[in-house]
Amino acid sequence: MANPCKQKRFVSHGGDVWGFARKYNIPLEKVLDFSGPINFLGPAPKAVEAVQQRAKLIRFYPDPNPVELRMEIAEYVGHGVDAANIILGNGSIELIYMVTEPFPCGFKAVIPVPSFTEYEKAALRVGGEPIFVKLPDNFALDVESVKKAVTEDTRIVSICNPHSPSGTLYSRETVLDLVEFCRKKNVIVSVDENYIEFAEKGQDNTIVGYVKKYENLFVIRSVTKFYGMPGIRFGYGIATESLIDTLQTVRQPWSINSLAGYATLAAFKDTEFIENTKRTIAKERVRFAEMLSEIGGLHVFPSVTNFLLVKILIKKITATILKEKLAKERILIRDCSTFMGLDDRYFRVTVRSFEENLVLVEALKKTINIANEK
Amino acid sequence: MANPCKQKRFVSHGGDVWGFARKYNIPLEKVLDFSGPINFLGPAPKAVEAVQQRAKLIRFYPDPNPVELRMEIAEYVGHGVDAANIILGNGSIELIYMVTEPFPCGFKAVIPVPSFTEYEKAALRVGGEPIFVKLPDNFALDVESVKKAVTEDTRIVSICNPHSPSGTLYSRETVLDLVEFCRKKNVIVSVDENYIEFAEKGQDNTIVGYVKKYENLFVIRSVTKFYGMPGIRFGYGIATESLIDTLQTVRQPWSINSLAGYATLAAFKDTEFIENTKRTIAKERVRFAEMLSEIGGLHVFPSVTNFLLVKILIKKITATILKEKLAKERILIRDCSTFMGLDDRYFRVTVRSFEENLVLVEALKKTINIANEK
Repeated sequence: MANPCKQKRFVSHGGDVWGFARKYNIPLEKVLDFSGPINFLGPAPKAVEAVQQRAKLIRFYPDPNPVELRMEIAEYVGHGVDAANIILGNGSIELIYMVTEPFPCGFKAVIPVPSFTEYEKAALRVGGEPIFVKLPDNFALDVESVKKAVTEDTRIVSICNPHSPSGTLYSRETVLDLVEFCRKKNVIVSVDENYIEFAEKGQDNTIVGYVKKYENLFVIRSVTKFYGMPGIRFGYGIATESLIDTLQTVRQPWSINSLAGYATLAAFKDTEFIENTKRTIAKERVRFAEMLSEIGGLHVFPSVTNFLLVKILIKKITATILKEKLAKERILIRDCSTFMGLDDRYFRVTVRSFEENLVLVEALKKTINIANEK
Repeated sequence: MANPCKQKRFVSHGGDVWGFARKYNIPLEKVLDFSGPINFLGPAPKAVEAVQQRAKLIRFYPDPNPVELRMEIAEYVGHGVDAANIILGNGSIELIYMVTEPFPCGFKAVIPVPSFTEYEKAALRVGGEPIFVKLPDNFALDVESVKKAVTEDTRIVSICNPHSPSGTLYSRETVLDLVEFCRKKNVIVSVDENYIEFAEKGQDNTIVGYVKKYENLFVIRSVTKFYGMPGIRFGYGIATESLIDTLQTVRQPWSINSLAGYATLAAFKDTEFIENTKRTIAKERVRFAEMLSEIGGLHVFPSVTNFLLVKILIKKITATILKEKLAKERILIRDCSTFMGLDDRYFRVTVRSFEENLVLVEALKKTINIANEK
């Protein structure tokens, strides 16, 4: 019965705070979660209010043609984007899956790695083959090596900007170079900008302003990370009108619940939350990186986002060991050994409050010192 | 770029109250919606309370492995079903799509019609071919004609019990006969039981008790219709453990928002709402059918659900004309001419309060009398 051209496999994610709480038998709220790259200040309070005030709207199907919502999102995105350039999705994952659905069985998806594991699953689930291109050690986007991986069967190149799990911001010129090249080959470039709002230079480097010019460009965003509301399930894709129209025919008619749009618009207008997030994350990211570096034996990669990728330089400690040790103190970190292109020398931590970051740093120090003494 | 083995097309639905309100420039709440087959008493008040109380939970990803939730759903379903037999979905549509995803390109999906249009789309979007079998004029499930349509390439037969759009309940023996036949052919029978809770004899005829015996049986349910909450997006599939495990690998990791599970469990415990729904719908369905029959020129089909299928016996009136005329009085009905296997002689109305049903009846009388006088 199984389709031989379709391979399925589970992929692992950060942020399984539910599984962690269950395993260690502690309440969800008591987990110190550095694993899911979610804004620790969230959810945006105005989004929560909107959900409470609009709760009775669950009696209606979601609006199948939310014209006003798409207009307001376009306005939020800016850079000349119109409502017709917007498609909605159940978080960014529905969009990541949606864009590969029209491709023929056996297509190739070029994925610079390490990266978000769902790009791979999106290809596998519809009979595509992921082609991995290893990024250089500093995680810069080496466009030339990506170009070399593009063949006749390639239908999509999936990148993430700012890059996850490293937190590196790619320049608009770099991304445009790739998009321009791929247009000639009739290959879609999917640019996941889920973390762009955290980046001080995000607005200068977002590629959204080019969706009208490049019909092979698909930009993915969501309210999951910056607005701290992964549970509302709301994302949006930005592309040329004809690509949006094609994707509209593939998607489920009502995949987004009736409250998510209202929560999103309320969040977009929550200027106090937005300003506080930008200020706090920028400040705490610097302090957190300094504290981590001072422990010794760790290399912290520069990041423009709300998370930090850390390489363990001490031979006898792995990310898997660290994760286990920290779990005993209710701390959850992201072991990066499950990322294609990384190994058990890497872990990722989300920037939280100064006090919480300090708790992690102290726990790390203790674990590393014990290991060094052995 | 398009996959030649995948066809896409838009399908039309009842219940686009948003589009109706927009077209006639009236507030959503002012539409007298007889179109979407949703419990007019909904949403279950305890579900709304749960959403309001748990709103802050949008800060967490949905639980990727909701053990307790699946257990409580299994308990609600009864008939010996276990948590391991339950898979969750974004409304019933994600489940309808999910079950066809593992099938090979070119598979055939047998669909007795008229029926819910998404069964057809579920086949088309993954390269399958729908094979329609016309139900007899009374919409009984003619199992022999369905059996004849099953060929070597058939992978699924999709039925709905109680049947939509007619409201007919099929006996368990009839459905079992089909399931037994299909097991030998290695064909899945998908039984959509979205309306079963409205039926007085629903518990006697549900097929859920057989999921452990028949590995080719997939039962679909949701809280959309009976609990009056289409906007929360929550459904569940019931099947043998191995089929559930296969489907788990295909699905999106977080398609259901963080609040939907809580809303559902609260709704299941809202006994006052449940009792009131059963009592009111049963009573008003009878009165509504009588009033409609008394108008003259209409045949009302017997129904066990919260909707009534009506055939227009007057030649000069079509469902499309009726829908347009009624729209001027803010009344929305379901023109059934877009259902495969029906034509413009049929429309469907949802049972609402006595007063609201009376408004529709009076408006229908007026429209039919004017037509008769011409």
